[in-house]
Amino acid sequence: MRPYDIIYKKREGQKLSPEEIRYLINEYTAGKIPDYQVSAWAMAVFFQGMDAEETADLTMAMAESGDILDLSEIEGIKVDKHSTGGVGDTTTLVLAPLVASAGVPVAKLSGRGLGHTGGTIDKLESIPGFKTSLSREEFINNVNNVGVAVAGQTANLTPADKKLYGLRDVTATIESIPLIASSIMSKKIAGGADGIVLDVKVGNGAFMKGIDEAHSLGKAMVAIGHEVGRETIAVLTNMDQPLGQAVGNSLELKEAIQTLRGKGPNDLRELSLILGANMLTIAKGVDNFNEGYSLLSENLSSGKALCQFKKFIGRQGADPAVVDDLELLPEAENVIEIKSRSDGFISSINAREIGLTVMMIGGGRVVKDDAIDPAVGVVLLKKNGEEVLKGETIAKLYLNDLSHQQEAVKRLEKAFVITDEEPSKKDLVIDIIK
Amino acid sequence: MRPYDIIYKKREGQKLSPEEIRYLINEYTAGKIPDYQVSAWAMAVFFQGMDAEETADLTMAMAESGDILDLSEIEGIKVDKHSTGGVGDTTTLVLAPLVASAGVPVAKLSGRGLGHTGGTIDKLESIPGFKTSLSREEFINNVNNVGVAVAGQTANLTPADKKLYGLRDVTATIESIPLIASSIMSKKIAGGADGIVLDVKVGNGAFMKGIDEAHSLGKAMVAIGHEVGRETIAVLTNMDQPLGQAVGNSLELKEAIQTLRGKGPNDLRELSLILGANMLTIAKGVDNFNEGYSLLSENLSSGKALCQFKKFIGRQGADPAVVDDLELLPEAENVIEIKSRSDGFISSINAREIGLTVMMIGGGRVVKDDAIDPAVGVVLLKKNGEEVLKGETIAKLYLNDLSHQQEAVKRLEKAFVITDEEPSKKDLVIDIIK
Repeated sequence: MRPYDIIYKKREGQKLSPEEIRYLINEYTAGKIPDYQVSAWAMAVFFQGMDAEETADLTMAMAESGDILDLSEIEGIKVDKHSTGGVGDTTTLVLAPLVASAGVPVAKLSGRGLGHTGGTIDKLESIPGFKTSLSREEFINNVNNVGVAVAGQTANLTPADKKLYGLRDVTATIESIPLIASSIMSKKIAGGADGIVLDVKVGNGAFMKGIDEAHSLGKAMVAIGHEVGRETIAVLTNMDQPLGQAVGNSLELKEAIQTLRGKGPNDLRELSLILGANMLTIAKGVDNFNEGYSLLSENLSSGKALCQFKKFIGRQGADPAVVDDLELLPEAENVIEIKSRSDGFISSINAREIGLTVMMIGGGRVVKDDAIDPAVGVVLLKKNGEEVLKGETIAKLYLNDLSHQQEAVKRLEKAFVITDEEPSKKDLVIDIIK
Repeated sequence: MRPYDIIYKKREGQKLSPEEIRYLINEYTAGKIPDYQVSAWAMAVFFQGMDAEETADLTMAMAESGDILDLSEIEGIKVDKHSTGGVGDTTTLVLAPLVASAGVPVAKLSGRGLGHTGGTIDKLESIPGFKTSLSREEFINNVNNVGVAVAGQTANLTPADKKLYGLRDVTATIESIPLIASSIMSKKIAGGADGIVLDVKVGNGAFMKGIDEAHSLGKAMVAIGHEVGRETIAVLTNMDQPLGQAVGNSLELKEAIQTLRGKGPNDLRELSLILGANMLTIAKGVDNFNEGYSLLSENLSSGKALCQFKKFIGRQGADPAVVDDLELLPEAENVIEIKSRSDGFISSINAREIGLTVMMIGGGRVVKDDAIDPAVGVVLLKKNGEEVLKGETIAKLYLNDLSHQQEAVKRLEKAFVITDEEPSKKDLVIDIIK
């Protein structure tokens, strides 16, 4: 087998065999095939695509390029959830204890934020004492004891995906549906998932700008799940504004706790219930979606989910008292009000701009090793469809270092698009692909 | 400027600016842009193409990446000729003295053979004493004194093209019309050409298998010439069999001398006259093609061209006596007759197979530094359209080392496609693009 022939074949639109895909991925990971051949191949894939079988083969080759987490010591069907990267997306913090409260084990590996998107591990680390680095044994024991564990990746997971993604990132070959789909799915499979629920964001703050491509991505990932025997559901959701009201690590954590208390923003609560009900369905914890949705709503109202959250963070080293006293969590020194620049209706809130502004004031990372300030961020007081008056406060900016204040205020003001006419209402959930 | 943006732009089918192309080529040549970005870009070019302006910009950026031979000390319009690589293509050996015999200076840099195709420098080096390595001064003096010089490349010509071609060769990005066209044209321009005549081969022995793609390549090169102010003519010629009868260095040299004597195979003579007449037209040595064709025919019959050849090889260190006594040239020890395996008509002769067989018996190179045996080769006694009887000799194999004899005979027998019906005659020249 020669890399040249594999590139050539794909360039000519031919289907690659499982052996060819595995050879390419294994030899590339081992450093035996150079970057320049793989980047040419990735560009050929960008133009010629891959079918469901090829995409599944690529997924498994990448998943098996490193360790695959063995969760067999945890009883039941382990369902993982993945979001394609949003702004202010606090669902994992709500979902993990919520699903566990319904008796379904949640063993979740999460990542850190980069660029304008946040990461669950950063949000959890804003709880004083919370430990995100767990050994495999601790991780499994925690799930078996309190029903839920969320940890950062420590094992050698999907090195092939890491290497390939890094190469695609600098060769303009990120935006390929089969390559995105296999990248996401390989990580979930390496994380030990038996089933997967995907939240595919669509809109200005999301990776997928249009519904058609988001739909294609959702379909591709569900097809991979089917091919490799992992039941998969993709939920397409609107990202024409940040999810919930808070953007920033500690602010989002507080919002998650509010939601677990049965309060919190509607969209965050609704999305958590929808994703959670789908997770329960796959895990066979309920007979159907509606049953799952009711059960989880009940667990929010009754405080069962909040109680699960306390156990979860307590088990991972934090003081559960923070749940009852949010002032124990990091808080910024300065709060600046952002005012509407005109009368009208909010028609969209540029989620990417909000995310970038939070990154600029220290709440996110420009490069992987940047330190972050958990306290800073933005809280949106008005969201899409709401009427505002000129000068009315539409958001609050939480700042420590004031040097970026002026620019941050300007960017936040601009991120709100205000129109004279009332915009038509957009549904949070666009489509569900099974 | 960032390489990423240039790749992205081309991937999206957008036109690159002259500055972007020059930046990419210069920084790549300087080792500041890595191979993996340029191979992804080349694959994007494969799919999205480049327009005439972009292709011309790329050509000039590559031509100017190294030295450009200054031929201003030679009076007149210097016209170069290039063939896209054939088997048994002896035209340069005939053309160089032939055109010079009409009073038009010929200052030609040539290459060595690789794989199944031969190289003019190897063919000339089969003349004992012939020197192909000339200093710039010797080169120019020779043209000014005897009207013609042919030398191997010694200067630092088109390093960008060398690097890019090497990368394309291992990333399945060779077969892109704008990349092929700019590669060829950049070398001709760096070689100091004011005008260019291109012989684009079409058929089983050629780089371009189909007429359509050969036509596109010809058009692309003529368009580059137009953009960069070098009058260019592309002649599309048939390569469904080797040109002439001889394939092999010394054998082809002898055939060239026969042709200069006014004998030699019809197709070689005809193609030399057509290419030569086009060169004279561009060089303003004649008023039109027909005038050039008549003048050159006359110079073959009168012995003027042969006399020019003697002066040329004498000036480059060889004994001109070889022209009158071909036995002074290298000759193989063994001659083996190849017989027809059936009655019928020869409908095609696989030129690539013939070329590869000659390479196998030592007449060509597998890799760049291989030594070659000038004496070995093949002479075709029957060519397309001719009737043959089973057992009739159709070719002769000239061998020194007998170890490959059996395989060579088998391959040569198979290279002749013999059919019951008389095939329709194919014209040597398919099209001329100006």
